[in-house]
Amino acid sequence: MARQVYISGRMVPEAEAKISIFDSAIMLADTVTESTRTFRHIPFKLEQHIERLYLSLKLTRIDPGMSAAEMLRTTLDVFEANLDNYAAHEDCWIVHNISRGLAIAGADPTVQVGKATVMIFTQFMDLKPWARFYKDGCHGVTPVSRMVPSQSLDPRIKNRSRLAYTLAEMEAKQVDPAAQSVILDLNGHVAENKGGNIFCISKGVLKTPSTVNCLAGVSRATVLELARKLGIPTEETVVQPYDLATADEMFFTSTPYCIMPATRFNTLPVGDGKVGPITKRLLAAWSELVGMDIVAQAEAQIN
Amino acid sequence: MARQVYISGRMVPEAEAKISIFDSAIMLADTVTESTRTFRHIPFKLEQHIERLYLSLKLTRIDPGMSAAEMLRTTLDVFEANLDNYAAHEDCWIVHNISRGLAIAGADPTVQVGKATVMIFTQFMDLKPWARFYKDGCHGVTPVSRMVPSQSLDPRIKNRSRLAYTLAEMEAKQVDPAAQSVILDLNGHVAENKGGNIFCISKGVLKTPSTVNCLAGVSRATVLELARKLGIPTEETVVQPYDLATADEMFFTSTPYCIMPATRFNTLPVGDGKVGPITKRLLAAWSELVGMDIVAQAEAQIN
Amino acid sequence: MARQVYISGRMVPEAEAKISIFDSAIMLADTVTESTRTFRHIPFKLEQHIERLYLSLKLTRIDPGMSAAEMLRTTLDVFEANLDNYAAHEDCWIVHNISRGLAIAGADPTVQVGKATVMIFTQFMDLKPWARFYKDGCHGVTPVSRMVPSQSLDPRIKNRSRLAYTLAEMEAKQVDPAAQSVILDLNGHVAENKGGNIFCISKGVLKTPSTVNCLAGVSRATVLELARKLGIPTEETVVQPYDLATADEMFFTSTPYCIMPATRFNTLPVGDGKVGPITKRLLAAWSELVGMDIVAQAEAQIN
Amino acid sequence: MARQVYISGRMVPEAEAKISIFDSAIMLADTVTESTRTFRHIPFKLEQHIERLYLSLKLTRIDPGMSAAEMLRTTLDVFEANLDNYAAHEDCWIVHNISRGLAIAGADPTVQVGKATVMIFTQFMDLKPWARFYKDGCHGVTPVSRMVPSQSLDPRIKNRSRLAYTLAEMEAKQVDPAAQSVILDLNGHVAENKGGNIFCISKGVLKTPSTVNCLAGVSRATVLELARKLGIPTEETVVQPYDLATADEMFFTSTPYCIMPATRFNTLPVGDGKVGPITKRLLAAWSELVGMDIVAQAEAQIN
Amino acid sequence: MARQVYISGRMVPEAEAKISIFDSAIMLADTVTESTRTFRHIPFKLEQHIERLYLSLKLTRIDPGMSAAEMLRTTLDVFEANLDNYAAHEDCWIVHNISRGLAIAGADPTVQVGKATVMIFTQFMDLKPWARFYKDGCHGVTPVSRMVPSQSLDPRIKNRSRLAYTLAEMEAKQVDPAAQSVILDLNGHVAENKGGNIFCISKGVLKTPSTVNCLAGVSRATVLELARKLGIPTEETVVQPYDLATADEMFFTSTPYCIMPATRFNTLPVGDGKVGPITKRLLAAWSELVGMDIVAQAEAQIN
Amino acid sequence: MARQVYISGRMVPEAEAKISIFDSAIMLADTVTESTRTFRHIPFKLEQHIERLYLSLKLTRIDPGMSAAEMLRTTLDVFEANLDNYAAHEDCWIVHNISRGLAIAGADPTVQVGKATVMIFTQFMDLKPWARFYKDGCHGVTPVSRMVPSQSLDPRIKNRSRLAYTLAEMEAKQVDPAAQSVILDLNGHVAENKGGNIFCISKGVLKTPSTVNCLAGVSRATVLELARKLGIPTEETVVQPYDLATADEMFFTSTPYCIMPATRFNTLPVGDGKVGPITKRLLAAWSELVGMDIVAQAEAQIN
Repeated sequence: MARQVYISGRMVPEAEAKISIFDSAIMLADTVTESTRTFRHIPFKLEQHIERLYLSLKLTRIDPGMSAAEMLRTTLDVFEANLDNYAAHEDCWIVHNISRGLAIAGADPTVQVGKATVMIFTQFMDLKPWARFYKDGCHGVTPVSRMVPSQSLDPRIKNRSRLAYTLAEMEAKQVDPAAQSVILDLNGHVAENKGGNIFCISKGVLKTPSTVNCLAGVSRATVLELARKLGIPTEETVVQPYDLATADEMFFTSTPYCIMPATRFNTLPVGDGKVGPITKRLLAAWSELVGMDIVAQAEAQIN
Repeated sequence: MARQVYISGRMVPEAEAKISIFDSAIMLADTVTESTRTFRHIPFKLEQHIERLYLSLKLTRIDPGMSAAEMLRTTLDVFEANLDNYAAHEDCWIVHNISRGLAIAGADPTVQVGKATVMIFTQFMDLKPWARFYKDGCHGVTPVSRMVPSQSLDPRIKNRSRLAYTLAEMEAKQVDPAAQSVILDLNGHVAENKGGNIFCISKGVLKTPSTVNCLAGVSRATVLELARKLGIPTEETVVQPYDLATADEMFFTSTPYCIMPATRFNTLPVGDGKVGPITKRLLAAWSELVGMDIVAQAEAQIN
Repeated sequence: MARQVYISGRMVPEAEAKISIFDSAIMLADTVTESTRTFRHIPFKLEQHIERLYLSLKLTRIDPGMSAAEMLRTTLDVFEANLDNYAAHEDCWIVHNISRGLAIAGADPTVQVGKATVMIFTQFMDLKPWARFYKDGCHGVTPVSRMVPSQSLDPRIKNRSRLAYTLAEMEAKQVDPAAQSVILDLNGHVAENKGGNIFCISKGVLKTPSTVNCLAGVSRATVLELARKLGIPTEETVVQPYDLATADEMFFTSTPYCIMPATRFNTLPVGDGKVGPITKRLLAAWSELVGMDIVAQAEAQIN
Repeated sequence: MARQVYISGRMVPEAEAKISIFDSAIMLADTVTESTRTFRHIPFKLEQHIERLYLSLKLTRIDPGMSAAEMLRTTLDVFEANLDNYAAHEDCWIVHNISRGLAIAGADPTVQVGKATVMIFTQFMDLKPWARFYKDGCHGVTPVSRMVPSQSLDPRIKNRSRLAYTLAEMEAKQVDPAAQSVILDLNGHVAENKGGNIFCISKGVLKTPSTVNCLAGVSRATVLELARKLGIPTEETVVQPYDLATADEMFFTSTPYCIMPATRFNTLPVGDGKVGPITKRLLAAWSELVGMDIVAQAEAQIN
Repeated sequence: MARQVYISGRMVPEAEAKISIFDSAIMLADTVTESTRTFRHIPFKLEQHIERLYLSLKLTRIDPGMSAAEMLRTTLDVFEANLDNYAAHEDCWIVHNISRGLAIAGADPTVQVGKATVMIFTQFMDLKPWARFYKDGCHGVTPVSRMVPSQSLDPRIKNRSRLAYTLAEMEAKQVDPAAQSVILDLNGHVAENKGGNIFCISKGVLKTPSTVNCLAGVSRATVLELARKLGIPTEETVVQPYDLATADEMFFTSTPYCIMPATRFNTLPVGDGKVGPITKRLLAAWSELVGMDIVAQAEAQIN
Repeated sequence: MARQVYISGRMVPEAEAKISIFDSAIMLADTVTESTRTFRHIPFKLEQHIERLYLSLKLTRIDPGMSAAEMLRTTLDVFEANLDNYAAHEDCWIVHNISRGLAIAGADPTVQVGKATVMIFTQFMDLKPWARFYKDGCHGVTPVSRMVPSQSLDPRIKNRSRLAYTLAEMEAKQVDPAAQSVILDLNGHVAENKGGNIFCISKGVLKTPSTVNCLAGVSRATVLELARKLGIPTEETVVQPYDLATADEMFFTSTPYCIMPATRFNTLPVGDGKVGPITKRLLAAWSELVGMDIVAQAEAQIN
């Protein structure tokens, strides 16, 4: 059966999954979001994602029309309804997009006049764009444009008003079409990737920006937990471009790829220019945590 | 006939005007926009709006799939197809929303893989929310959150990634549910309203922020032109909350209401707390420019 | 006997406690200050307050004309002279205001030409304004105006140039007349209340801004000490509005009320909207420390 | 007869001019202010000073208990009652200090519970501290501490919360005990002197900071008017330390001395290190405006 | 005869033009500088360059050991001594580098212990690197690193501490090896090129950043003068990347090439992507001013 | 034998140690650097200095033409060749200055066209300028100009573009000719001395700025190591002028003097105005570490 999408109470085939162009999702990007993935068909930390989703809903004052428990149940229903679309060796995204609902022309956009638009869907976990980086490492590049500061919009409110991210990513890709953005904040400190967090390792210490200027990523938290388990010292601190350029290792974290090694930063090699040992240990620990080889799954998609 | 909406080459009835939930308009708010209105069924400065739209498209590197001239012609077609929905004394919005098209999960969001999603529609020019302010003046209130700085995303790229504006407007409405936001930039200088520009008049001089920190509004430009015609000196300069609080007059400009007088600012009266004479002259001049009484049209909707 | 006030060497009845309108306290707010309170008629950490007073005097280069030991002795004398004005179940403030003395028109304001004006007085510890908040929690609201930055005037120099605080408090009270200000610094980070410090508790960790942007409050230090004794982990770190809005608990600290629970922040409930368990434990620990029930004393004033 | 001071409705001899140490003027520096001077016993631009006073009252929401017209009348009464204290060749200050009145311990400081404390007094216009600078020029020095930014407290609200100014002046005087402060804003741009405005002349153009970061001084406005009359081009613009260090001439403006030439800046000579011709022309024009020789009056006090 | 270089009073052949590695020029980059060029063997605005040199010397408190008049005479001597090295159709640079002289290890670097090191030399005006851009236009690219702010070091002090510029230029060249840097200031506003100023033309108005954040270039001033002569309106104002990206024309100015058209900015075409008409008029006017065809001279070097 | 200097492969007598005035060291201050000292003729942490040198070379993309191991060997050769110039009780500096080599007029300065200019030399460790401060303590003074921010040029890239430092040091010396600069960053936080790091001790805790805004000094690291060995708690944190003014002890660290006590800060005494006990313990520990009395060696030079 074709993939089914949940939209505000109804399940519809993916091809018919549409919303009004007058929805505040389109008119105002007034949409909070979460993206979870599965490992071996098991959603990863779904409760944590939904908890964070409800914080985003609270801060944006969107009433989703259901409790977190109902959201969890509904999400699992959507997931299970689509499960036969994914082969045993495949995994999928589970995505939530929740907007404030219809936007009435001229009306007060801060008042939710009707029901929120709740979109829940799954997608094939396509890892092809990243698969080669597990071995080669990717290229982190700093764009010129700067992170939207938290006093304008806190990035911990995970949302879909993402034009600034897309434009920043474009700037990074002017240096290298395969570059991954390393967005700086207004002080020139490392903040986040367009959809992920950033880590480096220097003299054995794992460092990442504190959440003062970036999303409190679930993958980020997972890496910090794994590092503590492995006895790797960690610091949530200010990270500057100099730190990345002189680090021994560097990587990104995000829901789909978990950990993406970076072996170049602004055209300079990171460390010896190869994927480093601590990065590999963390990846292996994550694979162990979820009972499958994350890297192998991705690489299988391109081989 | 019901209103028809243009979506990427097709005309569809408004109720069926939907787009895929996988469109980058929803997934990434990767959408540029324009809003024009008609006066006496004549689109106002439509060429200028379309010129600005093409600047936004250029900066976001979205290829709309048609030239500015074609966009103009298509827009007029849409408008004319809907004209019989609007009574002689009524007017309408003409709105463009153009996204980069479908967003593929995991793919590079900066590459436009298919056709842009071009949405053009008209809506009844509902002036009820603002009508009473022509006489009473509205209440401008500064939110705590600050304007996204231009080094993160230049507000002159008119776009639909607007969550920060909606949250700021909510903050203003905590002081007064009828408040209109006066958003400050990171320096604490007046920037813009969630969807309009801000002016004040002190000792006969009309002042408004330069476009260093705000949208280069078409209504803003119109007011500056009218002021020059009327011999009112104008300044595009830094405006601070102190300037508004001590001004003789204050108003907002935006496409639907043109000029909205403000008689209170952060609960203090502006000037003598009444709509001021220069504001009235500018409104009258605008009415003259478009050959109809702007205020009367709005007030008729609530009487 | 009526309350007696100490002014530069003399004890005078409160009603006659006046200073020249040419004093630098009035002309230039060139005044450092401390406010201590008693518990069971015992001054709380008076030595620490006086130590901090002498740091403020050092930084402002005001010569008070007496040593810290003399100041302590004099303070206790003032306190004891007024003790019979306070019933056994009542307590009092002990306040120091020390200005540079007379300000001569046109003279160099940085040169102390005569004796400092040393004002020491006690006041009834009126807890009525806050008493109901121990049970209901108060409402923290962020004003628009920002904390004076430490590179303009370090807030750790406890002083009476407080107009910026009063205006910020007014802004907070536009949202709710009973609101307590949560003033942000220029980065949009939480700094302090107009006369207190701010804490939140998230997942069991007690957090408060470091003193980079706020007063090093004696009550703040007391809470951190109590938390360490109770085994509650603490962090002096960057706190942002998002942290308060998503915290489980929140409270203010200040000399009169010690700990004031906050159950709303910018109109959103904090946690479940009720005074939280860790806040209660800290309050109880403080009561134990001072040998009396702080909350009961306050609530008795309004019942 | 001894000088009489007006305090909230009563005239009292200067030596008895005292207010309660519980007044908000002392407790919170919650005081707005104006300082006018006379020339030939004629108050200079008193109406303008009072107009600005009422803007400060409006912004601080202090109710002075009388209209601007009454304030003007009362001020003139105070002035006239003291006139016989000033010899024909002497002049005086006329100072307004208006606080929110009594501050009640623990009460909401933003609510004016009683009458404002209105202090109006005159003082001998002692020009000795500045007299020698008309001929020699003074020494402008930049302190390290920075101007309180307008988003914390707009300097156009003329007020008595002035500790930051006093500390900055002290820093300048560490370089030269006779230095006059040239306080910079947070961007390192020239803002104002502790009690005056700052001008420079480069290639014939008179420049001064716009009021974005400084007091809108009445003396400043007078200089700009005089310059326009004399055909000297003027610019209200960003002024940086480099501009002062490379200027041909430089001066301060303030109520008592009107125009104070500066011939050194941070130990470097300004221009040729002598008081310049345009400065002299402006001083002469001011003398002409007020019908007396400003410089001669000051110099007479030290010779 | 081989080119002769002036070093602190002596003329030496270029190949022997060396200074001690202990000179403050090398140890501390404590060196101010000017670069003039000739047109038809006539030094261009040499007096203005020397005037600016003496402002830089004043601000850095370097005593060059000779007056501006002597410097001018010496410079002309150096120039004339080298004149026969330049063919009639060729031109040359005239460069001044003046350091504080020998730097003694451990000694106070702010005290000039001996004579300044005065270096004056000429060099062939090699225009090959830029010649093709007169026809094709160059590519302006914004680096990530930001202009050193004027509160750290005012760029109007023309100096040789230029590592930040070189690193910024490297960043720009990561996007395009032929890119010319468009360095932004800390606010994200356009400041300057690594060795030149930046202009754009929008709707007929010529705009360039004010000298708040950039060098007050002699070429920049020349363009503004030429524009005024040609009746082209000019604005010295805030310029943002958006302004360049949407401009009709754009160019750089600097001593060697005078005006270098830019036809791309951050990979987007400027205007129609061709060298624009106003740019051409300004170039022609400059050629007329100096009595020779600037462009032809440059293009002859590569053809 | 006279001291020999290494320049790009050759050993030359110090008096002949010269480089072309066209070297990028002079033209662009495109030079990275290290300064090591010896104790008892043993170079101190030379490997660490060379490791940092290679990080600076990496970031500036200068190719020194030899590996770090070769650099170490060459350095030791230079040192040994000069050893007989230093008496047994004397020590010396070992300095590396490496520029990108010749700068060609008009050529792309980011491309290294030839060999780097590698300068290695030793100098007598002259401690006279600092010797008296071990006993008396020096005077730390904050200049007005602010540290170049890391987003303009990271101070951890140890380089010779040092004009901003020299000008800042001059400003500090306007307050006291013997002052040592305490340079603040753009936030007004303590950054570094013109050539050293800054520490203070408050209530037994040793504090120094984190390397977010300052050089990661080898001496700084040594002090932190010694403190840990001695059981003194350390914090790398934000340090503000208030912290220094209220500290019990304060000192600078730099290669020549190791630890220089400061007993005054901005004219105020630090602690009791005497060199403090923890400072002395750290100095003693350093002496022990290097097997000689650091203070005695310095004091012998002035007695």
